[in-house]
Amino acid sequence: MLYSQLSLCIFRASVVSPQPNTNWSRSKSNNGRRVGHCTKVSRSVNMENLQSEYLFPEIFMREYEHSQKNPHANLIRLGVGDTTQPIPDIVTKAMAQHAQNLSTVEGYKGYGAEQGNTELRMAIAETLYGNMDVKSHEIFVSDGAQCDISRLQMLLGSNMTVAVQDPSFPAFIDSSVILGRAGKFHEETGKYGNIVYMNCNPENDFFPDLQTTSRADIIFFCSPNNPTGYAASWHQVKQLVEFAKSNGSIIIYDSSYSAYISDYSPRSIYEIPGAKEVAIEISSFSKFAGFTGVRLGWTVLPEELLYSNGFPVIKDYNRIVCTCFNGASNIAQAGGLACLSSQGYQAITNVVDYYKENAKIIYETLGSLGLKVYGGKNAPYIWVHFPGRSSWDVFNEILERTHVVTIPGSGFGPVGEGYIRVSAFGSRECILEATRRLKTMFS
Amino acid sequence: MLYSQLSLCIFRASVVSPQPNTNWSRSKSNNGRRVGHCTKVSRSVNMENLQSEYLFPEIFMREYEHSQKNPHANLIRLGVGDTTQPIPDIVTKAMAQHAQNLSTVEGYKGYGAEQGNTELRMAIAETLYGNMDVKSHEIFVSDGAQCDISRLQMLLGSNMTVAVQDPSFPAFIDSSVILGRAGKFHEETGKYGNIVYMNCNPENDFFPDLQTTSRADIIFFCSPNNPTGYAASWHQVKQLVEFAKSNGSIIIYDSSYSAYISDYSPRSIYEIPGAKEVAIEISSFSKFAGFTGVRLGWTVLPEELLYSNGFPVIKDYNRIVCTCFNGASNIAQAGGLACLSSQGYQAITNVVDYYKENAKIIYETLGSLGLKVYGGKNAPYIWVHFPGRSSWDVFNEILERTHVVTIPGSGFGPVGEGYIRVSAFGSRECILEATRRLKTMFS
Repeated sequence: MLYSQLSLCIFRASVVSPQPNTNWSRSKSNNGRRVGHCTKVSRSVNMENLQSEYLFPEIFMREYEHSQKNPHANLIRLGVGDTTQPIPDIVTKAMAQHAQNLSTVEGYKGYGAEQGNTELRMAIAETLYGNMDVKSHEIFVSDGAQCDISRLQMLLGSNMTVAVQDPSFPAFIDSSVILGRAGKFHEETGKYGNIVYMNCNPENDFFPDLQTTSRADIIFFCSPNNPTGYAASWHQVKQLVEFAKSNGSIIIYDSSYSAYISDYSPRSIYEIPGAKEVAIEISSFSKFAGFTGVRLGWTVLPEELLYSNGFPVIKDYNRIVCTCFNGASNIAQAGGLACLSSQGYQAITNVVDYYKENAKIIYETLGSLGLKVYGGKNAPYIWVHFPGRSSWDVFNEILERTHVVTIPGSGFGPVGEGYIRVSAFGSRECILEATRRLKTMFS
Repeated sequence: MLYSQLSLCIFRASVVSPQPNTNWSRSKSNNGRRVGHCTKVSRSVNMENLQSEYLFPEIFMREYEHSQKNPHANLIRLGVGDTTQPIPDIVTKAMAQHAQNLSTVEGYKGYGAEQGNTELRMAIAETLYGNMDVKSHEIFVSDGAQCDISRLQMLLGSNMTVAVQDPSFPAFIDSSVILGRAGKFHEETGKYGNIVYMNCNPENDFFPDLQTTSRADIIFFCSPNNPTGYAASWHQVKQLVEFAKSNGSIIIYDSSYSAYISDYSPRSIYEIPGAKEVAIEISSFSKFAGFTGVRLGWTVLPEELLYSNGFPVIKDYNRIVCTCFNGASNIAQAGGLACLSSQGYQAITNVVDYYKENAKIIYETLGSLGLKVYGGKNAPYIWVHFPGRSSWDVFNEILERTHVVTIPGSGFGPVGEGYIRVSAFGSRECILEATRRLKTMFS
């Protein structure tokens, strides 16, 4: 293709708004058109199949635009579930020491094992799975649960069917779309054709009716759930395991919020006997230890989990981790290990308790205003129902009137329409101020 | 499926050896068979299509087995290209300070932008692409080039054709296989049917004959090349850009070793006018600043790069990064920023120079022994030819006789057969001792 022939090549105007930290969608365009060399490489049909920008950057963009319009407003961010409280000193000291040691001959470390440092894998197995027969070599340390979701998607064959809770963390569906297993999007339902949506709402106590749920190869299940804040009970998780077993499905169980459980709900799917034969568990230090920016998580791939031909899934996942990943930062891993020392564990638990108290304050305040509130007891999220209203309308109204950022529930799936999610990750001062403003707005 | 019916479900014996840090392939097996619940989820045909374990863990395993057999041998690891020298204090101090600050209210940081911290993106653009019109918003900071390769593979449609240098870094082909675009493997040639192999050998000065190279949608090109150590000249890279332009291809240019260039070869593909319309560049702090364990890299996605329909690739890549990644560790990013300060840059350049001197010593020693040596001048790798011999035989013989670990060239592709790669990442003492032993062996 000659350069002179390229003038017909048009930059398609984006339907989405630019994000605050990128400006390429505005730059060098002329009325949304762009002239230049086009490659002959087609855009992936899977990428084309994505319906909207990823939810959280979209929220950041709304925050940004609001603060541009209201430069003097004291914005309170209870939207994206971002931790705000300092990491205990015992943990940061371990990371700082590890970093400093890298400048010495004795302390320098290059590549670690892709699967994670043995000591950390052992500490995770012992501290968090002590009575569950999870072995350290079944634990793959990573840079976070969201990244592991994609690696698990790469692991799986292209013809997999997928089930998700509705509502659910958007990366489950979006990564399924990117890997080409979601099917066609239906505007009228807001659903992808090949995805099984498992409704979770107050009527079913936020646990899907498995008797009417179609079989899927892969079941994404997050408990405590983001965004509803609901933790499935031991009997419910047992039902889920039995459902997967009888259907020959694999559960990908997201326990990233398990530290927030206050009742007897299981903190890991492996508390259920036989779960190792049907479930992978992903989890994270993000909300457990304030590592959202430090980046550390893990996936448990039990050796008992087998494909239909008897081949152990762990062997393929190990291959994915070695080929597509190179291990989590060794500094973050040093921090993770410090979190699991007895003193470190107590210290990070104190921070979790602080956020749990925040959640209680939000839950009780909104409840006292007569709003329909859910979650908040086993999770740092409060799920608020505004029957008959649009989530985005409620989100916008709260933002305009109180300068409090929440998240529209419809961003988590069709069943989330009419809800907003309020995060408890803030300083106590911010939480109290936000509840004061919400009280004024709703009373 | 009832549990009692599952006893016929057999664990298929693995043909690959266990790795030192995993023992699941040995555990709980009985003559290679395994009894247990099988899911009904099929193993991915793409994973089945992978021909061998990933090269580098395989090398670690060989090292491990050798040291078990020879517990008193002083093993010298010049195999996997793992950095060994301390990171300059100015860089580790910045990371330690950042880590320590996370325990304070003022210094705590949660999620950063998925694309990386603005300051770091700006520093990369200014320091490393100053005269090339690469903008900071075109730079996506990551946890390393190997991880970015997989994210780029996810970006691309499933029917892409791929070209790679032969020999090349194995993640290019392996990730293509995992994403299902490699085609059938042919035992007789050692090649995948849908991959275009671009031969690089002494006869063509390690630069492929583009006149006889078939078109591919994606061209992976690594310069300075791992493993051959050869850096393409400005005129050669220009040829490559023109080749991609005339074919409508996208180049994924890996410049991870550019800090090792000693001559006038381009350090970035964007030194070539027009390259932004055809090339993505991946790069890394791993070999540039000893960050193999710290984990930090970046990808440049120029806004000029367009799909055949005119849609900018950067928009889709941004979506991938937001959905499948959550940003590099903020501590590692603080280190990256310190590397790009003038004092930091000088300090890390000194370490690169140290490795370059190592490379010179290895190159000259092996050359003086009459061996056919290549590379080593623009890269930390020396590529040694043993015509008519098997790479693995040479690898084993060197390991047995000298306790020096190298890497068999055949692990990098069929053209690598008969070669070994020797890494210059070691202390001077180790390098001198290794060359003494190799001298004894080969003279």
